[in-house]
Amino acid sequence: MNNAAHRDEFTLIDWIKRQQPDDPRVRLGIGDDAALIDFVDSYNAVVTTDMLMEGTDFTFPPASPFLAGRKSLAVNLSDLAAMGAVPHSAFVSVSLPRRGKTWTEEFFGGLFDLAKEFDIAIAGGDTNSWDGPLVVSITALGTPGPRGVITRSGAQPGDWIFATGEFGGSIAGHHLTFIPRIREALSLTHHVDVHAMIDVSDGLASDLRHLLEASGVGAIVDATHIPISSAAWELSVIDGKTALEHALGDGEDFELVFCVSPSDGQRLLDNPIEEIRYTPIGVITDEAHYLLNNERGETSPMPQLGWVHRV
Amino acid sequence: MNNAAHRDEFTLIDWIKRQQPDDPRVRLGIGDDAALIDFVDSYNAVVTTDMLMEGTDFTFPPASPFLAGRKSLAVNLSDLAAMGAVPHSAFVSVSLPRRGKTWTEEFFGGLFDLAKEFDIAIAGGDTNSWDGPLVVSITALGTPGPRGVITRSGAQPGDWIFATGEFGGSIAGHHLTFIPRIREALSLTHHVDVHAMIDVSDGLASDLRHLLEASGVGAIVDATHIPISSAAWELSVIDGKTALEHALGDGEDFELVFCVSPSDGQRLLDNPIEEIRYTPIGVITDEAHYLLNNERGETSPMPQLGWVHRV
Repeated sequence: MNNAAHRDEFTLIDWIKRQQPDDPRVRLGIGDDAALIDFVDSYNAVVTTDMLMEGTDFTFPPASPFLAGRKSLAVNLSDLAAMGAVPHSAFVSVSLPRRGKTWTEEFFGGLFDLAKEFDIAIAGGDTNSWDGPLVVSITALGTPGPRGVITRSGAQPGDWIFATGEFGGSIAGHHLTFIPRIREALSLTHHVDVHAMIDVSDGLASDLRHLLEASGVGAIVDATHIPISSAAWELSVIDGKTALEHALGDGEDFELVFCVSPSDGQRLLDNPIEEIRYTPIGVITDEAHYLLNNERGETSPMPQLGWVHRV
Repeated sequence: MNNAAHRDEFTLIDWIKRQQPDDPRVRLGIGDDAALIDFVDSYNAVVTTDMLMEGTDFTFPPASPFLAGRKSLAVNLSDLAAMGAVPHSAFVSVSLPRRGKTWTEEFFGGLFDLAKEFDIAIAGGDTNSWDGPLVVSITALGTPGPRGVITRSGAQPGDWIFATGEFGGSIAGHHLTFIPRIREALSLTHHVDVHAMIDVSDGLASDLRHLLEASGVGAIVDATHIPISSAAWELSVIDGKTALEHALGDGEDFELVFCVSPSDGQRLLDNPIEEIRYTPIGVITDEAHYLLNNERGETSPMPQLGWVHRV
C-alpha cells in the first residue's frame, strides 16, 4: 500500500466533509458505508440524477473547474425545479483528472457554493481519480412541494403555455452560469395550479414536445411571444441562423416551461409575481399537432430542432 | 437535429423502461424530469453511491458487459448490506462507449438481473454515450432495517469480530461475481445486536482499520482464524506473497466484517444461522492498537495492506 496516495484520497474526503455544515436532514453523512437521511415528514422523495462529462457538458477553458462543479449540481437542481420539489440532499460521484489539489478544490467549491445557495445538503458521494477526463454524476433528492409533484403529463387542452426567462445562445456562457429555477417553481406552484412542467435542457421546441407527448395533447406556439436572449441574437449574426431558431433549438437554457388553466394564466398576467419573469408563449390543444405561428400570422409545423442525443 | 440519433437514445430509454416491472415503491418512474419514490412507512432513507470506471473496476475481457453491469449494482448493494438496510430503489447513470446495441443491452441485462434478485427497483437514471471508456454511477436507496442502521462506529471493547465468507484473490474473478451480503446482514441483525459493520472493499485489514478508527477502539485479530479463499492460495503460489497477505490485503471481497457482544458472539457459534457462513476473527480492545496474532502465537502490528486510493 502506498500510504501517501492513500492519504491523498482520505485528505480530500476529510476536506469535503469539513465544508458541510451540520444539517438535521443528514443524520449520518460522509464517512460511513452509506448516508442516513431524514425526510422529516415525508414518506416520498423526488430523485433525479445527471452525469456530466468533460468534452460534452463543459470544456476547460472556457469553463473553470469552479463553474464545472457549479453546473454539475445546477442541472440536477433544474430537474428538481421542474418537479416543483424542495431540494433536500445530493450525492456527488466523480472521476477526477489528476490536475492538482487547487483544481479539485475549486471544482468542489463551485458545487458547494450552489448547494449553500439552494440549501441542499451534500450528504455523500464517491471520489475517484483516473487518467481520463472529468466525469461527474450527481443524484439530487428533494421532497414534494406543498401541492405535490408537477409532472410532464398533466397539460390539458385550453391550458396556456408559459416559459420563464429567455431562450437561445446558452452555449455562449449561460449554460455554465444559469440559475436553476427552484425559487420560481416553488413560487409559481404556490400561486397557481401548475398542470405540467418541464425544464428546458434539450431545447425549447424539443422539451415542449416531450411535455406534449407525455400529456397526450397538441400545442400552438406563438413565435412572436418567445423571449429571445441577446446571446441568440448575437449568434444569429455570426452563423446565419435566425435568433428564433436559436431560441427554439438551442439546448441548455434550463428555463421552465409550464401549463396552467386560462384563468390561472390570466391571474399570472394581471398580478405578476414579483421577481419572476414569465411569458405566455402558446396554448395547449386537443389535436395531435404541434404548430408555430410566425410574425406574419402563418402557421406551420414546429421545426425539428434541438439537442441530438446519441447512444 | 439528427432524428435517427435522437431516436437511438429514446429507444434505449424505452427499452430500459420496459424491463422494469410495476412497483408500488416507484410512484413515478423513468420518463419525467425526476422520479417520485415512496418509502411507504419511513421518513428515513439509507443512500449510497459508487462510480465504476472501465480500466479501474473492470476491463473487457475478462469482464463481459453483463458482469460489468452486475458488479456496478452489486457494489452499491454491498454498501446497503453493511448498513443493515433493506434495498429500495436505484438510479443508474452511464457514459456508454459506442459498442452497439447488443453490448449495451447485455450491460443493462446484468444490472437488471441482480436488481430483480435483490428486489431493488430501477427508478431512473441518465444515459449518455461518448468516445471514452464505460463509466457507471449508481445511487442506491434503502430503508433502515427493523433495528435501524448499523454504522462503523458502534464497536465496543470486548466485542467479538466476525467476518462473513472468505478473503483474498478476488481479482481472479470473485470481484465480478460476488453476491452482495444483503440477506446475511438482514439475518444477522435479526438474530443478534450488531454493534458495528463494514463491507470489505479496500481489503480486510484496511476496512477493519476504518471500523476501528470510526469506533475509537483497537483490535487483536487472529491470523489462524481468517478464512482464506482458494483464489488467495492459488495467487500465493504464483506471486510469492503468502495467502494470508492476500486475504488481509486484497480488495473487493465484498464480505461483511461485524462486531457483536461476547454473549451474542457465543450465540452465533452455538446456534449457527442456516445458510450463512461467518467466522470469529478477533476481539475489540480499548487500547489504541491494531494487532495480528500469527500461528506461532506471536503478536505484531497489523501490516499496512490494502487498496491504494489515489486522487
